[in-house]
Amino acid sequence: MDTDLAPLSPTSRTTVNRGRNRVVADRTRLHAFLEDAMLAHLGVIVGEGEANHPVVLPTAYGVDLDGPDAGGSLYLHGSVAAGWLGRALDRDVCVTITELDGLVAARSAFHHSMNYRSAVVIGRPRRVDDHDERLHALAAVVDHMIPGRWATLRPSTRKELAATAVLAVPLAEASMKERAGGPVDDPDDIAAGAWAGHIPLRRVAGAPVADADARGGVPADVRDRVAALAATGV
Amino acid sequence: MDTDLAPLSPTSRTTVNRGRNRVVADRTRLHAFLEDAMLAHLGVIVGEGEANHPVVLPTAYGVDLDGPDAGGSLYLHGSVAAGWLGRALDRDVCVTITELDGLVAARSAFHHSMNYRSAVVIGRPRRVDDHDERLHALAAVVDHMIPGRWATLRPSTRKELAATAVLAVPLAEASMKERAGGPVDDPDDIAAGAWAGHIPLRRVAGAPVADADARGGVPADVRDRVAALAATGV
Repeated sequence: MDTDLAPLSPTSRTTVNRGRNRVVADRTRLHAFLEDAMLAHLGVIVGEGEANHPVVLPTAYGVDLDGPDAGGSLYLHGSVAAGWLGRALDRDVCVTITELDGLVAARSAFHHSMNYRSAVVIGRPRRVDDHDERLHALAAVVDHMIPGRWATLRPSTRKELAATAVLAVPLAEASMKERAGGPVDDPDDIAAGAWAGHIPLRRVAGAPVADADARGGVPADVRDRVAALAATGV
Repeated sequence: MDTDLAPLSPTSRTTVNRGRNRVVADRTRLHAFLEDAMLAHLGVIVGEGEANHPVVLPTAYGVDLDGPDAGGSLYLHGSVAAGWLGRALDRDVCVTITELDGLVAARSAFHHSMNYRSAVVIGRPRRVDDHDERLHALAAVVDHMIPGRWATLRPSTRKELAATAVLAVPLAEASMKERAGGPVDDPDDIAAGAWAGHIPLRRVAGAPVADADARGGVPADVRDRVAALAATGV
């Protein structure tokens, strides 16, 4: 893991212009957040010239901070038949990962807000063709969902791998913002004496639901994942 | 509310090409989901020509199905100083709203998946300039976070309104996908007799946290919001 990287927001594209007080400049905080969060939104540009438009799609992801890309590798995967994959290769993409942490009930509409952690990564995806790196990337995606699961599964078949495209986005060009805590109200509104505060939110896991054809008990990796989410949420 | 609208995915831009079995074609399901979900990701194109790239930012939103835009209005707001607002006006944007509902632990890496509901809206934003519609839109955003809250707050000041930009995106061009339930495994893997299933996820609210200067008890709107999320989650 490259610990000599500059703090976050190293380029004009990932410099946060609004809400600078909410910028997280510590790259290790970004790494911890990417580990915690579960869902990415991938933005790609579709179409040419005046007819172009962005498309934003939800996707799973995996991270290898020691991956071959600058700043480490953010891995995405999908069907080779998916249109976004081809589009994502020729152009820069934006991968945004957000967890909503709360609703902020201020004393004025203006100061209502949300608590969140959000990372924005901009970069040119690399198609991962090397067999070993493809397996490594897919393991990162599966183990990001349920840590330790990849090692318990049968090997992927040639056919499955041929149907799967893997992309790597460099983590070098990234920014992170965070908002936490209660409202920041105007002094007059505070003096007027109303209630204000925030509602914490977190994502929790329910008990695992076995497939109708499942044999045996819930495996340790699934139990551990549920326990971790029950304890802390995301 | 326009009930004569075509089913979802009416244009080539919002036709779902992959995973057609997961397409939600019922517009009322989209409306219910937009009501339930809390966070949008707005994708805009930044820069010109070869230097352009998408930026995806998390944002609150509000919906008025009777709004003046085709299919109803999705309202977004932000600081007039925020760069994305100017960029969002000249070009089509994509607003994607996703809730993660579960992790699917299949018998092969290939069939691992996530349960989710996700709506994708593509359209050209309209800047909302009319005073009454601006107030109506901001009320929609605040009441989407905490239903009934807008009516309990003091009126917005001229200065606050001048600092706030409001955009409306038509809901006409939209698609929705949903995945629910357990894994869809290969017959050979099922026959081999392993456990498989899914981990349900939901977003829940904790007890409201009062601001240090808060006076009085937790208001009914906040209590109701917490109770609703505690009962069902999102």
